[in-house]
Amino acid sequence: MGVKTKDEYIESIRALKPTAYMFGEQLTNVLDNPRLRAGIEATAATYEVANIEKYKKFVVTTSPLINEPVSRFTLPPSSIEDLVARVKMNRHLGNYVGTCHQRCTGLDCLSALSIVTYNIDKKYGTDYCGHFTEFLKYVQKNDLAANAGVTDVKGDRSLSPHEQVDKDMYLHIVERRDDGIVVRGAKVHQTGSLSSHEIIVIPTRALGKDDQDYAVAFAIPSDTKGLIHVIGRSTLDMRELDGCDIGNTLYSKYCPTLIFDDVFVPWNRVFMCGETDFAADLVGRFSAFHRQSHGGCKSGKIDCMIGAALTLMDYNGTNKVSHHKQKIIDMIHRAETLYGCCLAASYEGQQQPSGTYYIDTVLANASKLHEGKELSEAIRLMIDVSGGFVADLPSDRDFQNPDVGDLLKKYLKGVDNVPVENRIRMYRLVEKMALESADTISDIHGGGSPEAHRVTIFRETDVESKKKAAKRLAGIES
Amino acid sequence: MGVKTKDEYIESIRALKPTAYMFGEQLTNVLDNPRLRAGIEATAATYEVANIEKYKKFVVTTSPLINEPVSRFTLPPSSIEDLVARVKMNRHLGNYVGTCHQRCTGLDCLSALSIVTYNIDKKYGTDYCGHFTEFLKYVQKNDLAANAGVTDVKGDRSLSPHEQVDKDMYLHIVERRDDGIVVRGAKVHQTGSLSSHEIIVIPTRALGKDDQDYAVAFAIPSDTKGLIHVIGRSTLDMRELDGCDIGNTLYSKYCPTLIFDDVFVPWNRVFMCGETDFAADLVGRFSAFHRQSHGGCKSGKIDCMIGAALTLMDYNGTNKVSHHKQKIIDMIHRAETLYGCCLAASYEGQQQPSGTYYIDTVLANASKLHEGKELSEAIRLMIDVSGGFVADLPSDRDFQNPDVGDLLKKYLKGVDNVPVENRIRMYRLVEKMALESADTISDIHGGGSPEAHRVTIFRETDVESKKKAAKRLAGIES
Amino acid sequence: MGVKTKDEYIESIRALKPTAYMFGEQLTNVLDNPRLRAGIEATAATYEVANIEKYKKFVVTTSPLINEPVSRFTLPPSSIEDLVARVKMNRHLGNYVGTCHQRCTGLDCLSALSIVTYNIDKKYGTDYCGHFTEFLKYVQKNDLAANAGVTDVKGDRSLSPHEQVDKDMYLHIVERRDDGIVVRGAKVHQTGSLSSHEIIVIPTRALGKDDQDYAVAFAIPSDTKGLIHVIGRSTLDMRELDGCDIGNTLYSKYCPTLIFDDVFVPWNRVFMCGETDFAADLVGRFSAFHRQSHGGCKSGKIDCMIGAALTLMDYNGTNKVSHHKQKIIDMIHRAETLYGCCLAASYEGQQQPSGTYYIDTVLANASKLHEGKELSEAIRLMIDVSGGFVADLPSDRDFQNPDVGDLLKKYLKGVDNVPVENRIRMYRLVEKMALESADTISDIHGGGSPEAHRVTIFRETDVESKKKAAKRLAGIES
Amino acid sequence: MGVKTKDEYIESIRALKPTAYMFGEQLTNVLDNPRLRAGIEATAATYEVANIEKYKKFVVTTSPLINEPVSRFTLPPSSIEDLVARVKMNRHLGNYVGTCHQRCTGLDCLSALSIVTYNIDKKYGTDYCGHFTEFLKYVQKNDLAANAGVTDVKGDRSLSPHEQVDKDMYLHIVERRDDGIVVRGAKVHQTGSLSSHEIIVIPTRALGKDDQDYAVAFAIPSDTKGLIHVIGRSTLDMRELDGCDIGNTLYSKYCPTLIFDDVFVPWNRVFMCGETDFAADLVGRFSAFHRQSHGGCKSGKIDCMIGAALTLMDYNGTNKVSHHKQKIIDMIHRAETLYGCCLAASYEGQQQPSGTYYIDTVLANASKLHEGKELSEAIRLMIDVSGGFVADLPSDRDFQNPDVGDLLKKYLKGVDNVPVENRIRMYRLVEKMALESADTISDIHGGGSPEAHRVTIFRETDVESKKKAAKRLAGIES
Repeated sequence: MGVKTKDEYIESIRALKPTAYMFGEQLTNVLDNPRLRAGIEATAATYEVANIEKYKKFVVTTSPLINEPVSRFTLPPSSIEDLVARVKMNRHLGNYVGTCHQRCTGLDCLSALSIVTYNIDKKYGTDYCGHFTEFLKYVQKNDLAANAGVTDVKGDRSLSPHEQVDKDMYLHIVERRDDGIVVRGAKVHQTGSLSSHEIIVIPTRALGKDDQDYAVAFAIPSDTKGLIHVIGRSTLDMRELDGCDIGNTLYSKYCPTLIFDDVFVPWNRVFMCGETDFAADLVGRFSAFHRQSHGGCKSGKIDCMIGAALTLMDYNGTNKVSHHKQKIIDMIHRAETLYGCCLAASYEGQQQPSGTYYIDTVLANASKLHEGKELSEAIRLMIDVSGGFVADLPSDRDFQNPDVGDLLKKYLKGVDNVPVENRIRMYRLVEKMALESADTISDIHGGGSPEAHRVTIFRETDVESKKKAAKRLAGIES
Repeated sequence: MGVKTKDEYIESIRALKPTAYMFGEQLTNVLDNPRLRAGIEATAATYEVANIEKYKKFVVTTSPLINEPVSRFTLPPSSIEDLVARVKMNRHLGNYVGTCHQRCTGLDCLSALSIVTYNIDKKYGTDYCGHFTEFLKYVQKNDLAANAGVTDVKGDRSLSPHEQVDKDMYLHIVERRDDGIVVRGAKVHQTGSLSSHEIIVIPTRALGKDDQDYAVAFAIPSDTKGLIHVIGRSTLDMRELDGCDIGNTLYSKYCPTLIFDDVFVPWNRVFMCGETDFAADLVGRFSAFHRQSHGGCKSGKIDCMIGAALTLMDYNGTNKVSHHKQKIIDMIHRAETLYGCCLAASYEGQQQPSGTYYIDTVLANASKLHEGKELSEAIRLMIDVSGGFVADLPSDRDFQNPDVGDLLKKYLKGVDNVPVENRIRMYRLVEKMALESADTISDIHGGGSPEAHRVTIFRETDVESKKKAAKRLAGIES
Repeated sequence: MGVKTKDEYIESIRALKPTAYMFGEQLTNVLDNPRLRAGIEATAATYEVANIEKYKKFVVTTSPLINEPVSRFTLPPSSIEDLVARVKMNRHLGNYVGTCHQRCTGLDCLSALSIVTYNIDKKYGTDYCGHFTEFLKYVQKNDLAANAGVTDVKGDRSLSPHEQVDKDMYLHIVERRDDGIVVRGAKVHQTGSLSSHEIIVIPTRALGKDDQDYAVAFAIPSDTKGLIHVIGRSTLDMRELDGCDIGNTLYSKYCPTLIFDDVFVPWNRVFMCGETDFAADLVGRFSAFHRQSHGGCKSGKIDCMIGAALTLMDYNGTNKVSHHKQKIIDMIHRAETLYGCCLAASYEGQQQPSGTYYIDTVLANASKLHEGKELSEAIRLMIDVSGGFVADLPSDRDFQNPDVGDLLKKYLKGVDNVPVENRIRMYRLVEKMALESADTISDIHGGGSPEAHRVTIFRETDVESKKKAAKRLAGIES
Repeated sequence: MGVKTKDEYIESIRALKPTAYMFGEQLTNVLDNPRLRAGIEATAATYEVANIEKYKKFVVTTSPLINEPVSRFTLPPSSIEDLVARVKMNRHLGNYVGTCHQRCTGLDCLSALSIVTYNIDKKYGTDYCGHFTEFLKYVQKNDLAANAGVTDVKGDRSLSPHEQVDKDMYLHIVERRDDGIVVRGAKVHQTGSLSSHEIIVIPTRALGKDDQDYAVAFAIPSDTKGLIHVIGRSTLDMRELDGCDIGNTLYSKYCPTLIFDDVFVPWNRVFMCGETDFAADLVGRFSAFHRQSHGGCKSGKIDCMIGAALTLMDYNGTNKVSHHKQKIIDMIHRAETLYGCCLAASYEGQQQPSGTYYIDTVLANASKLHEGKELSEAIRLMIDVSGGFVADLPSDRDFQNPDVGDLLKKYLKGVDNVPVENRIRMYRLVEKMALESADTISDIHGGGSPEAHRVTIFRETDVESKKKAAKRLAGIES
């Protein structure tokens, strides 16, 4: 067992039989569907790099739990070094795949649960931590990919879960049985749910005492009965299905809606069941870890965008243009800001009672807040530098058409020594990185909306000490 | 004759037989192709509103040239009132179609030519203005839509036209004949070329004395022999082709690459032929007019985005959330900034020697510079307010699927009194307005890249008088 | 009579005997106090330019009320042309004085009162408009400068006027007599109160029915008994008092706190007295006019800042540096944005029932919202371009010191052909424009705080029509 | 000796007899001049906190050079822990003094010299490192404060040092003697030169082979013969001299111009002499360290600004206002961004051949680039939240005036339970932090101008690897 190879991972995904729908049809073969495969390949890259020398040190380490080499994607951080390695691993991977590798949410859930189940047990004498630890060993030993089922559909956002007209708008327990629980609801934006072996579910928000049935956390295989993956639309989904005009030739992303249609969860897979007072803590920890993950992978994605913009400057004959260079610097500055803040969040992490290391939340949220605003700005800059063919580029099929193909190739040529095909490919990549909705929307909403980051920053900042310092200088208090 | 109805316009487009390719295939019926039809409908809206009372006053006026009622889209501005009406007409239309109506570039070309052909004739004793005036009468009498062939493919951007390895990288004259000229080259991002009756071509940049063959302007029907329209990819092109998951149910945009494969132009349709010293003036005037056009229609598009975001606040139960309201204000502020600057540019316009009114270029460029940066910010704000389903929304076909359709409708419900279908439709519209590449890329590159606006602003500003004022106050000069 | 000359204005100010304190001392001669004189000179410039050919057309016009030539600073706008001329006059003056000329608030009050007194009379059958019109004739005939007493001290901002512990925190009527009223309170940030002949008072906020005594508007001479002007500190106040190291050698600004210590106002000078339902309208109209005023004068001030930055580029040998030029463009862009939006607000103005023309409030507030953010950005850019001597420049007295004067002059030299004195003077001007608190704070708080502009923008925008447009496109409503 | 107490430091400064001029007069007692004393107190705070338990761990450590406890302000970083401690020490101190403590530039020079003298010796077989190490021991043993003489006056910035008309525009060697060298020139913006025992001089820019005499580095006591300190103007300098209306009641900042009027430097104090090829390295290292210093102290200053704004919200009755809270979050976000990036720069530091640890320069410059833009934004937000009395607040002397003092105190009251004096004091502190030029200008120009940071970021970034990643994904290269 131990750390899987890419091929082992692919075969393990092939072995799953999930219920999945896309564009009105049920899918019989998830793995070989070109659109989903591009997403699964992105997760596969997390296995691949574990075996590439350059990246290995960031990805592979020894788990103190099972005393065996594991992928860091299965390891709740047990040291500052682990926290830092997560960021660097994610930056390398973001650059390597140019999109989302889809494996961080699972790790972020494992990390949060490793802290909170311990805390719940301390207070209530439950054994969630025991359940969780067994599950974690299983994940580590089999190098599994997991998905985080966090975001509920929410119905009317002005109402709390138990106040909703339809009580299923937040996932909840509909039956408690001897052998386990039955849950109902739906989780949305389930990045990589079909690239994952396991689906981990946690609450999406703080809960009140009347929301008891909604305070539930657990893990189940992604092909569990009653679990339905519905892959929605993204802007460029048909390109992969058509096998044509694909910008990122290797990887992509998809994010199903996941319906839990009365799904059974055995007790040993239940990690929270009714403890409403820990719901905010659990989702808060997850979100903070997830914001740190973004700081790594998104700076890696900007790296890739910088590379594409610079390459098009080479191809277009604009690599001496000073305002283009200024825009490249603006892009680098944004990448380093995300990276710097979340690296600092990691170095400044602290050990929790359960032993897991937790990041500095203010710095992690500072990073994510930049992402929400600056990634769209980085995209705008990339488009500005690259030129207008981010839209309207004729199809590869037009380039192959006997009537107009040669004419198009003639006219799409940039500088003399660069094959026109390369210029076309690079424009396609820019289009993908700029306009693939599965990616760009999560820059804004992933890990909670910007307002959530802001609220967290304020709540976690010691404002009283700042007032005190000001009063001392003003001569009001000493 | 006179101002066409929408139906008359549609039929006039049906009568054309352009050569067009899309995704590797030649098209036999442009008008009924769903993707192109949505774009043609947007142009048709410019005819439709001419007959709607509320909008009529902005669109219909009397041409001093033919002394008949005409659409302002065929009228080079002959008064300040005309300049202002353009902006208001474009704002209304931007809001009405929620995308680009594609008819402004033609008007902007007509406006620029009405000034510059006169100036060329003054200097060189040519009769371009005569040719142009006859053409303009024809356009006005038949209420034709025209397209602006401005942006050349440009090859190696560090070289001027005549320095290119392939001399065809900028459209140029390859033969001068008794009855006319033959031209070769390609113009890209030809918004609405198939919604237009006429294609007007002007140079794309300043030219030197060795670029004489590139100093050419003319107009030809959009189905002229040798003219090839290649419709390229845009992010959401397949939605219209599939007839499914279309966000804007009425309108869209497309921008072909237009190849001039040795096209003949009769002399009476030639408006510039070798006068390199007027190339910069011609493209500069066009660009300034076009930046004013954008200030109108894009503020109208933001209006539409504000409406969509507010509607989703109603549907999601977030219409009381204060930070959402702040973001709406930020969006309004951006719309009004574009609008205010280009309205001022119009009110401050001045009559030119030919009689045409020209805008204040500094203010018009100030507006466009905001557009290039702030429209992507307005989109980001709309996405932030709307929520995550801007991506990943299941397909309409999933909603119709007997297995999962009802489950999806159950879970996609927002507030109680709004049909789930409406919420879904509004998310699709937001997706279209946020992520349709044909629109969003032109926010940045349309009317020239941001750097072009900046250079213009500096060149057109009287900096010496500002220095003088500072020196007086500093006591250096009186 | 008629339009005063600068000298006549100065003498008319000398004739006033206001009660004024500064830095703990009562002043016996306001006019010849160097600090106040610099401010009075700025207002005097509004009289001076009325007699300079280049500016005359913007400043002098004929009043329809008295059928005589008047300064526009005494004229509520009676046409679109008047509204536009205000903006241009203010831009010219902002550039001419490089600071605040202090005469716009009076005009903005006159303009607001000319609309609202009419409306009150219509509803309540009062004769405020009659009182006001007589006052206005007097102002016009004598070309008086007026000051706007708007901002109350406000005490605890979470409480309304009548809820305050000390009822005097908002100016109010303490006695109603046969011959007039007695008022008590204090108005702060009274720009130019000692440069003004008259003080016009209006409420600072919306009032409820229990705030009746606070609904009061009136005008009194600036040297009325009981009126106390306390000139506060500004950052560079001692420079003028010391007569040394003054950046703007001609003009400055000051803004006293004005205490109304039981001041009597005769009935014919009372323009509102108890009509709480019109308080919001009155202050709202004033604010909207004032935000338009700012859009003019602050763009003129940025012009001056651009001139200073460009001059220092010449003096420092950096006038070829491309990133400096980019920053100059950024500054121009900001000036034109303020100007464009408030010019548009003027052109789009509409006549009110009283006959006065009123601006488009959304566009005026859009302009002011930019000012609040972008003026500090323009200052930052000016500092960046100018270099570090905006701070720390040795004193003129050091340059005159026999020991070190020559050494300093040697070392402060820039490019060879520019006298070192000029470079020093220009740095001082930049320091003044960047760091004079009397100016820079009003960029943010003048005409109400940024949040006030935002709230106004939202309130005055027709959001329902925007929703309707989005619903039509989404296929929800036709 | 070892770590000095605050009193020992003050007495050691008293013992110096520097030549100093201010406002045209020579100073006989620097220490007791109120304006300079406030600055000296800020440096004294760096000694004070070394003896306060809470801060001690950040400030005091053991020097590996002398094996004794030393202040970190005398210690070139010899570990990652040292680099990180610098940032935290600076943040604490920035918050503690609310201005610049003026002791970082000396440390940054020591740190840079400890790396570069070693590198020069390696190449040229010189013994600068030996000189430097002796000097460093002396500094550490006596816990001395040092100042960095970096910024030359520069004359015509388009010319290199040897091209200047006046060869003294960059400090240079005018004589080489047996016992040492004689130097001439001037260094400007010499923060804390009179709070320092030693002045360390290094070149300000890259030098060419013809600039040999300008490639000079050394250290001399601040009261060396021929060294003239000329204290220039800052915006609020007279407040301290008048002893009135001082915002920061404890600390301030001043930055003299320092003239080297043929100053003798003995050989054992010379650290570079003619090695032009190391000039860029030396100033580059200094600047990078200094940008890291800023990231610490300026985030500490923003902390203080946040505290002041929050306190005024309490005092004004606006502490429940949601848009104020949003602005506070914006300020926190800015502080944490500076801090996060420069903390990351420290954790990612690397050991240099000499043994000293050096920061990650891209991250350090990313931090400084934010400072240059965001500190002025943080100030704007503080002003917005605090309200208009940041300007125009009456003088303390007015509050004491028997005629108007009580009236002013009555009217300046905020919420009921806060003494009016406290509110006034807090407004004065805000004024100081917002508008003291000695501080705010250095936010922009300190450690080199923004363009210098940008150029560094680009130069230090591996752009080729980014291009490579993009090409792989586009399918161009594997």
